[in-house]
Amino acid sequence: MNKIIEDLNWRYATKKYDATKKISAEDFNTIKESLRLSPSSFGLQPLKYIVVENKELREELKVHSFNQSQITDASHMIVFCSLIDIKENHIDQYIENIAKTRSQEIEKIVGFGDYMKKEIFPMDKILLANWNSKQAYIALGQVLHTCANLRVDATPMEGFKADKYDEVLGLKEQNLKSILVCAFGYRSSDDLNSSLKKVRKSQDELFVLV
Amino acid sequence: MNKIIEDLNWRYATKKYDATKKISAEDFNTIKESLRLSPSSFGLQPLKYIVVENKELREELKVHSFNQSQITDASHMIVFCSLIDIKENHIDQYIENIAKTRSQEIEKIVGFGDYMKKEIFPMDKILLANWNSKQAYIALGQVLHTCANLRVDATPMEGFKADKYDEVLGLKEQNLKSILVCAFGYRSSDDLNSSLKKVRKSQDELFVLV
Repeated sequence: MNKIIEDLNWRYATKKYDATKKISAEDFNTIKESLRLSPSSFGLQPLKYIVVENKELREELKVHSFNQSQITDASHMIVFCSLIDIKENHIDQYIENIAKTRSQEIEKIVGFGDYMKKEIFPMDKILLANWNSKQAYIALGQVLHTCANLRVDATPMEGFKADKYDEVLGLKEQNLKSILVCAFGYRSSDDLNSSLKKVRKSQDELFVLV
Repeated sequence: MNKIIEDLNWRYATKKYDATKKISAEDFNTIKESLRLSPSSFGLQPLKYIVVENKELREELKVHSFNQSQITDASHMIVFCSLIDIKENHIDQYIENIAKTRSQEIEKIVGFGDYMKKEIFPMDKILLANWNSKQAYIALGQVLHTCANLRVDATPMEGFKADKYDEVLGLKEQNLKSILVCAFGYRSSDDLNSSLKKVRKSQDELFVLV
């Protein structure tokens, strides 16, 4: 078995963390870089990541997460948020970032900005928010691979009350909504889930060749 | 820079493929395993991957993909599909798979199946289809990391006419819809995009610490 398949088999949705073990600054930076480098539609990155360190806040969010212990016990916890609406300044800043990063004249790429505006502005607002939220799932998939490679445990979670999170973190006023939660850290030695065999469909069931 | 960050900086959405270069069977198997091992909500894997090898079919799909050359020139091309509806047999088969994989008595896990049914069956059908589609984005994020690690180029694509794909591939009748397309292969030496600097927001813009 090669290293990649070994890594991906090693990972599992950790149920119980060892609250005494912390992720090193270097590894956590790699996790943040993995999220930052994650691709998104048009490259717009309509996302924001809230790293919750405050203990009281974690306790409060745990209540809105069906009291799952990962929220408070994991070394780190990130709320993946996406933009509700994409506004003109968001696209303009992106175009400026392209021009700066690639030392291009802004006049030469402004057409790309106009194209995105023409595509995005007429979109139904619910569809747009939903499209933005999907970009968070790409980042999640990428970072889970990164964690497996680093041998850092992670728990992706959809089981939380997003409206309560939005309220507690004051997200709506910032044009944001909470999409996913992910806990990061190290499994407890008595996490029964860690010894369970991974259940997946077979390649024959999942893949069709045409 | 560590290997992970190096890999993720190496990757980009390949615009032009070298049509003469093919991915080895071993690497393509790793790509398939990465998709297969990708996590999903409840572990339900409401997904199907269509690997399109047939040249005529690729030509036909290219027309429905704004004539983007990656569809025909890349070594491999996969259409990520998700289930439209999750039916009783889907959940039952999953429960049977858990029992078989973990040598557990089915009576002991049937409660998990009942729980999923109680959560999923009353869901609005559009929301359910949408939720299923998000699982494809997790798999996409994971497999792009895998490809970067393998130094296989990839192009995630949302720019295709999903309804036409569904028609050509006969997906609706199979309770499936096309969500994403991803091309896999090796960049052409004259792909101008390969030399462009990656544009991303800074960590300061993306991360908030609370």
